[in-house]
Amino acid sequence: MPEVLFSVDQSQSFTEQNVLGHNRWHPDIPPAATVRPDSEFRLECREWFDGTIHNDDSANDVRDADLSLVHQLSGPIAVEGAEPGDLLVVDVLDLGPVPQESGPVAGQSWGYTGIFARDNGGGFLTDHFPSAYKAVWDFHGHTATSRHLPGVSFTGLAHPGLMGTAPSAEMLSRWNDREGALRDTDPTRVPPLALPPEPNNARLGGLSGDEYDRVAGEAARTAPPRENGGNQDIKNLSRGSRVFYPVYVPGAKFSVGDLHFSQGDGEITFCGAIEMGGFIDLHVDVIKGGMETFGVSAPVFMPGRIEPRYTEFLTFAGLSVTESGEQRYLDTTLAYRRACLHAIEYLTKFGYTPEQAYLLLGAAPIEGRLSGVVDIPNACATLYLPTAIFDDDIRPTSGIPQRVDRGQCAVSN
Amino acid sequence: MPEVLFSVDQSQSFTEQNVLGHNRWHPDIPPAATVRPDSEFRLECREWFDGTIHNDDSANDVRDADLSLVHQLSGPIAVEGAEPGDLLVVDVLDLGPVPQESGPVAGQSWGYTGIFARDNGGGFLTDHFPSAYKAVWDFHGHTATSRHLPGVSFTGLAHPGLMGTAPSAEMLSRWNDREGALRDTDPTRVPPLALPPEPNNARLGGLSGDEYDRVAGEAARTAPPRENGGNQDIKNLSRGSRVFYPVYVPGAKFSVGDLHFSQGDGEITFCGAIEMGGFIDLHVDVIKGGMETFGVSAPVFMPGRIEPRYTEFLTFAGLSVTESGEQRYLDTTLAYRRACLHAIEYLTKFGYTPEQAYLLLGAAPIEGRLSGVVDIPNACATLYLPTAIFDDDIRPTSGIPQRVDRGQCAVSN
Amino acid sequence: MPEVLFSVDQSQSFTEQNVLGHNRWHPDIPPAATVRPDSEFRLECREWFDGTIHNDDSANDVRDADLSLVHQLSGPIAVEGAEPGDLLVVDVLDLGPVPQESGPVAGQSWGYTGIFARDNGGGFLTDHFPSAYKAVWDFHGHTATSRHLPGVSFTGLAHPGLMGTAPSAEMLSRWNDREGALRDTDPTRVPPLALPPEPNNARLGGLSGDEYDRVAGEAARTAPPRENGGNQDIKNLSRGSRVFYPVYVPGAKFSVGDLHFSQGDGEITFCGAIEMGGFIDLHVDVIKGGMETFGVSAPVFMPGRIEPRYTEFLTFAGLSVTESGEQRYLDTTLAYRRACLHAIEYLTKFGYTPEQAYLLLGAAPIEGRLSGVVDIPNACATLYLPTAIFDDDIRPTSGIPQRVDRGQCAVSN
Amino acid sequence: MPEVLFSVDQSQSFTEQNVLGHNRWHPDIPPAATVRPDSEFRLECREWFDGTIHNDDSANDVRDADLSLVHQLSGPIAVEGAEPGDLLVVDVLDLGPVPQESGPVAGQSWGYTGIFARDNGGGFLTDHFPSAYKAVWDFHGHTATSRHLPGVSFTGLAHPGLMGTAPSAEMLSRWNDREGALRDTDPTRVPPLALPPEPNNARLGGLSGDEYDRVAGEAARTAPPRENGGNQDIKNLSRGSRVFYPVYVPGAKFSVGDLHFSQGDGEITFCGAIEMGGFIDLHVDVIKGGMETFGVSAPVFMPGRIEPRYTEFLTFAGLSVTESGEQRYLDTTLAYRRACLHAIEYLTKFGYTPEQAYLLLGAAPIEGRLSGVVDIPNACATLYLPTAIFDDDIRPTSGIPQRVDRGQCAVSN
Repeated sequence: MPEVLFSVDQSQSFTEQNVLGHNRWHPDIPPAATVRPDSEFRLECREWFDGTIHNDDSANDVRDADLSLVHQLSGPIAVEGAEPGDLLVVDVLDLGPVPQESGPVAGQSWGYTGIFARDNGGGFLTDHFPSAYKAVWDFHGHTATSRHLPGVSFTGLAHPGLMGTAPSAEMLSRWNDREGALRDTDPTRVPPLALPPEPNNARLGGLSGDEYDRVAGEAARTAPPRENGGNQDIKNLSRGSRVFYPVYVPGAKFSVGDLHFSQGDGEITFCGAIEMGGFIDLHVDVIKGGMETFGVSAPVFMPGRIEPRYTEFLTFAGLSVTESGEQRYLDTTLAYRRACLHAIEYLTKFGYTPEQAYLLLGAAPIEGRLSGVVDIPNACATLYLPTAIFDDDIRPTSGIPQRVDRGQCAVSN
Repeated sequence: MPEVLFSVDQSQSFTEQNVLGHNRWHPDIPPAATVRPDSEFRLECREWFDGTIHNDDSANDVRDADLSLVHQLSGPIAVEGAEPGDLLVVDVLDLGPVPQESGPVAGQSWGYTGIFARDNGGGFLTDHFPSAYKAVWDFHGHTATSRHLPGVSFTGLAHPGLMGTAPSAEMLSRWNDREGALRDTDPTRVPPLALPPEPNNARLGGLSGDEYDRVAGEAARTAPPRENGGNQDIKNLSRGSRVFYPVYVPGAKFSVGDLHFSQGDGEITFCGAIEMGGFIDLHVDVIKGGMETFGVSAPVFMPGRIEPRYTEFLTFAGLSVTESGEQRYLDTTLAYRRACLHAIEYLTKFGYTPEQAYLLLGAAPIEGRLSGVVDIPNACATLYLPTAIFDDDIRPTSGIPQRVDRGQCAVSN
Repeated sequence: MPEVLFSVDQSQSFTEQNVLGHNRWHPDIPPAATVRPDSEFRLECREWFDGTIHNDDSANDVRDADLSLVHQLSGPIAVEGAEPGDLLVVDVLDLGPVPQESGPVAGQSWGYTGIFARDNGGGFLTDHFPSAYKAVWDFHGHTATSRHLPGVSFTGLAHPGLMGTAPSAEMLSRWNDREGALRDTDPTRVPPLALPPEPNNARLGGLSGDEYDRVAGEAARTAPPRENGGNQDIKNLSRGSRVFYPVYVPGAKFSVGDLHFSQGDGEITFCGAIEMGGFIDLHVDVIKGGMETFGVSAPVFMPGRIEPRYTEFLTFAGLSVTESGEQRYLDTTLAYRRACLHAIEYLTKFGYTPEQAYLLLGAAPIEGRLSGVVDIPNACATLYLPTAIFDDDIRPTSGIPQRVDRGQCAVSN
Repeated sequence: MPEVLFSVDQSQSFTEQNVLGHNRWHPDIPPAATVRPDSEFRLECREWFDGTIHNDDSANDVRDADLSLVHQLSGPIAVEGAEPGDLLVVDVLDLGPVPQESGPVAGQSWGYTGIFARDNGGGFLTDHFPSAYKAVWDFHGHTATSRHLPGVSFTGLAHPGLMGTAPSAEMLSRWNDREGALRDTDPTRVPPLALPPEPNNARLGGLSGDEYDRVAGEAARTAPPRENGGNQDIKNLSRGSRVFYPVYVPGAKFSVGDLHFSQGDGEITFCGAIEMGGFIDLHVDVIKGGMETFGVSAPVFMPGRIEPRYTEFLTFAGLSVTESGEQRYLDTTLAYRRACLHAIEYLTKFGYTPEQAYLLLGAAPIEGRLSGVVDIPNACATLYLPTAIFDDDIRPTSGIPQRVDRGQCAVSN
């Protein structure tokens, strides 16, 4: 086991313990540790909501979750000699839930998937699911099951939802400008088009005083992925993956968090992965001048070799036509929404509630593909649902599907 | 080998031979043949442009291709007893290029990929590639190589780009309405937002006279995928796949065409697959009342088991920020465009011209995934490029990439 | 489609048609055709028993099959410039059953698997299955089903059972010596330990007269694989495979036959694959001096990328202890026999007869592995049975297996 | 993390610490713990030689290893209600090297592969490699590299080499009889044909006094796999696997040990896997009467879904002809030995020493298959070497292989 560079007590929140870490992006957040190129180390991570979501049967905690808290990141880790223009090579050696017994907290042998309410961030299908819901998952080694989703079990594809390097001041400014401009087009929209800098609850490593105030006012939120990586939520960044990150500041200042036990492509319920606290083991190295040499201005990666192997899929296709029948032009996001809705409708025929089906599509290792993006005016997106994750046979046949009573997920009041 | 229900002479165009077939969607196009449920049969198919694209080193044919010709479809095949509300089960047993020697035509041991010019349909990256380009591919069994793309070879994932059932009159009317409404928002756009019915060059099976004129004026173009399947261009509908199509008219009236030797997700150059004439062997069956029983209102499918296995990928991620830096809201189509542009930029470092790289991404078995669709405001799309299709090692390393002179694809004057 | 270098009429036997080809190994069999390095071509092949096994419900034809007939090979193909010490590079571009309608013969849209009787060659489990049995398989594209084995269907992994280069005279002599020495240890054994040269029914290309007699008396039988490749029956030599054969005679003299639609590892019923006539498309090239350069004295190969993907297996392990309880020392062949017998016993609980189960293990894409070969005194061999080839769920559960009446395979009188 | 039922101190040997466990099979070894059906728990395991093999550059420890020590097993675990005739269902939830820092011992972030000397157990190729050798592997998450084998790295397929249930007294007696009979055929053979009961160094859980002496004299050695599972060394029993073990004694008495970070099929160097101490998380359940219901008299298993995915292999085939040219009858063990020797010869052309190549074939995720077992007189065995484990391209080409100096593994004096 490599050296632990960033350690947390999983039995209490970040704020209760005297630990560094951050939940905003800014070049001036000081490193939590410094390593040499060709180093291996372990970082411990809090789950993205810092333990405020519980292993129970109510979704009120999801309903009331405070988005200004996220994402709780471990880092930044500075890499000696890394300079702007280099590529930071990051190998995801291993990750997993909290290994030690450390009390009744998120991030041990369980995790959760949440549907966020429309007025608290929403999600991909928020018009259809405006309230908060939750499923709690139990981990059995690499397999997940849920009392809120009986009849399914699957092998997780654990990955960090969020990894990235620090932006330069210039890049940060560009982020704030472009996101602000978008937000300004509909500033009162619910859910919002983008999240502005938010000093409240900002965690900024060891910064304090005026420096804290300045940085908190400028620092970018962690919700979106950006040119530094960030919250990419790419399910395939699993064990054995190698990622090449652009370096924008001296030392690269690499951070990680938002560990997922599993996730479907798109992470569609917003908190669609199975969220967990845990650890991640990394190896880092530097390719000097790699951005120019390889023409890289955004993260590039190579997935690992131990993704779970499912080979039979039931696949749903969606078009860029709205639910009310309006034609949109090559809108793949809409096409995928329709594919998701088709899959949910299908699964209700087997006894799942729509909320259960939605949670499942967010958490299980489904694949979402851009199958067609040129056949005007319809984009075609496809959702691949592995049939082997179901205890029952869910393939269409000439018979009648077995509509079992499968209870319900956790709901909010 | 199953019985040939639809036969074509691959040495001449559809119009030169006295054969049925169609290139528009309409419920009143009469069946070319009728089969019973649980039947197997073969259909022969012309390549989508009916042989007007040649095995040469000029892209002038692509530049001048007449889009009113496409797609040349084999069918419709009526299935006895199929009624609206049923599911038509279609098994893709096998497909391939034209097996017999039959003259110097498209659809034998070669195919092509084209980039369409902006003023003739355009493509996914038409703002960056406004002219016409072409690559001709040679087939070696299941492997493709191209004199226009030296240094790559890959195993194809052959599939029909277009399969589908006939729309009902009501559905056809809905298609025309919604697509017309979109087109009306910017009627002079180049390329257009959608294609209206086009009587010129309409092929409508055996129809003639007034009936021909009426149907030609109403019939939908075949470019977009729709609720009947159609031009889905889903690369995974390969050998062994089973598709469940909604039935909208008595007999289902199933048609197929646009055979592809291979394609990347998205078919990004518009004519992005490797186009070929050839044959397809099908098995059809009917699930009575299946649309209601399984909640299916759009095609559902199960991919086959013999997709080529690539397991090492170099992956590019894109965001929904335009090339000029404008932030868009969860626009996955844009995010995938950026991912494609990142990949093209990368490949130029190894000596490929941008046009070659673009053609390659359209034709090779790349995967395009909707990795994140909820992390406002940025969608995250990812493009998986199998490294084994390259003769050289194209992974980023601490060395310098070998920038080989790789010539150029076919260009237009 | 590449040029046909070796053409056969699939509606009649080799002896009825005036065609070259051979069924023995000898350096002096003259080439049927000559090609240059870097050539592609097609060879048509008769099924290994030249059409004497029929699509019917009796195994009498298998019982009476004359082993002096096999294997009917297409070739030899001489490669210009190939010399002893070189490596012949053979790419299996494609293969399949007879594409054209050509009468009611083996090798069209069906094939067969046979259990040979103990007194006619026997098979892997001949002590348990001393009589002849047969299953006829129908091909549906790449899928096989059988009226003699209801409840199973699988994707085939088509391959040539037999490919190889001609031996040198010295090598042939060595083969005859060592096999004769083995046979001499128990010359009357049934089935025999090895097959001696057999002039009766020898087919030797264009040879005649004294030369025919001489060669027929010396030529090696084709049953065993040897240093030239030959009847390796390696199921993974499928589409897209590249094989490197040692060259022992000028021109290499490459031959091929014994096409299989599918096979399990071991081809355990002796005629365990699904035998078919058909075609094979090949590309050949030469690595000068490759035997020495790469230290190669037996065929080396790289499997293709389109093997069917099964990912859930029920696996049976066997030990090197005989059925009567006698301990043998690290005998993997015995261990695999026990694994096969365990699998057969298991399948009978689901209603298959032992003969049906045996035929299935020979023909379906099962894997047989040498799991342990050092843990004295027990070898451990494992047999991987893909669960998805069964219509029913055959996994062990706490319930009772559904013992369906599945009829019987073809039997002999 | 599940409850730890069997805990060890990895910094000292079993004998130094007061812990149960055993290294012989006998029905009367008392359980170390008892669980209910449907339980999950963790067992900690010492590496098979109890820490006597060191992370250094000499193979003297392997040369002098005392085989009477092995295998150090954790257990037995009794399962309430399990009775003879039942099937014990064991799910391998997770396993890995020792997670905590606990001193400079085997089983942390490194493991080893050993070639045993001919006069100390030998190995698969002991006639060719009569001395002791060793390679030490470093673990980087799921990847292994070795200073003794530069130029290779691979994803491990971690598994317990040994799991099993206790034999009944009757079964134990049968084992001793049959193995003794074999040993008696050549009692002075080096290495021996089989290992007799050996009281010296016998560890028997809590037994003492006369009971210890009686059991030590009767108990079977753990080297071979048998009808109870035992030392099957099946590399595919990895994370997510489900095994069905016959139950022979009340409570089943399940034990586990010999954890491997990786292994090739056959574990050919005898200590061919990468040996490590560590932990294993299990779930157990019982199928009452399952042996009769499913016809199971030896372990049956279903591999997990997260085996590393390699898809390009260089494959070597071997025949059942001895190195000196003697023909043997369908001897798959010999055929695999020849395939291994072919692979070793090949790898030496790239600069590996024969010992390095041998160690690599034992430890890397290679596959060994029984390709042909009926083509008299030659068995055909095949060894699949994944090409991606090598930093260099090791495929045969028309060029000359790069013969790099790769040093040497650890050797003995």
